[in-house]
Amino acid sequence: MQVTIFGKGNMGQAIGQNFDKAGNDVNYITSSSKATHIGDLVVLAVPYSALENIAEEYKELFKGKVVVDITNPLNFKTWSELVVPADSSAAEELQEKLSDAIVLKAFNTNFAATLQTGRVGNQTTTVLVAGADEGKKLLTEALAGSSLNVLNAGPLKRARELEATGFLQMSLAASEQIGWTGGFAVIE
Amino acid sequence: MQVTIFGKGNMGQAIGQNFDKAGNDVNYITSSSKATHIGDLVVLAVPYSALENIAEEYKELFKGKVVVDITNPLNFKTWSELVVPADSSAAEELQEKLSDAIVLKAFNTNFAATLQTGRVGNQTTTVLVAGADEGKKLLTEALAGSSLNVLNAGPLKRARELEATGFLQMSLAASEQIGWTGGFAVIE
Repeated sequence: MQVTIFGKGNMGQAIGQNFDKAGNDVNYITSSSKATHIGDLVVLAVPYSALENIAEEYKELFKGKVVVDITNPLNFKTWSELVVPADSSAAEELQEKLSDAIVLKAFNTNFAATLQTGRVGNQTTTVLVAGADEGKKLLTEALAGSSLNVLNAGPLKRARELEATGFLQMSLAASEQIGWTGGFAVIE
Repeated sequence: MQVTIFGKGNMGQAIGQNFDKAGNDVNYITSSSKATHIGDLVVLAVPYSALENIAEEYKELFKGKVVVDITNPLNFKTWSELVVPADSSAAEELQEKLSDAIVLKAFNTNFAATLQTGRVGNQTTTVLVAGADEGKKLLTEALAGSSLNVLNAGPLKRARELEATGFLQMSLAASEQIGWTGGFAVIE
């Protein structure tokens, strides 16, 4: 599968490495490059603040694609709240802007180091994915053969709970109660 | 420390067992009994729907006490949403009703079995606690010597994220992707 990843920071690279390991063809788009061709699966490994411009610029190219939002839309000045409305989420906002794409929420509950190693402590790293079934199926297939487990977190509305969980996990790390190599391991 | 637990279901007993193990004096109040004396620490191990009546009945006795809300206020008919307003939480609602008590949110991200055994998979069970520092200090002291880790999840406003995380975890178990003996282990 062709996977296009916007952003080549820690998260973008750690995610890309897993798609690569699973046998997909991975391409990166950085802020200094412009995409002219887009894979079937798009991962927006960028900060929340960058989503709006990308959605505007690539709306046409994203038509019919599965677009994965990985952001944790925190207020990073106060660390006391999310900046999206309480009854919505970054992913739901993005879906409204990209009405012809299938938006998924995924990877936001995984710290970069746990995606790089495939481990949270001695547990396999689990990616929780919310969104339409068709999109989740594609993402799950693309990650089969990677180092990661994938679980179905429900419809896109559950992005709200994924973003709350991501916020909670980050606040535990920011307060140095857990490390950025740890976090929530999903035990089956 | 004297600990009063309302409710003697799976959660109440599993929580009580930990306070007991840590050397506290644990008393249970069930729906067929009425409390006349209340410990310094109160755990409301009851469903969300029972909180309002308990708050009304015990408002005076709860004055100055630390009152722990463990509920996951799900719509159990649809499993598709929380029944509290998106910008609030069961714990914040309870704090409004019990303005002279210190309300904490805790134990709602722990399945009963993981409180009984003290383990999530091969990890120690971690209790995430939100609320005022004074209350969290008391709860943490009372659980020292139990089988549980305790981490500080921030002010009571973070109950919103704890309830979202609890909802997400329960939905994974209800959809049989994880077991009720598993869930989110907190890896340091």
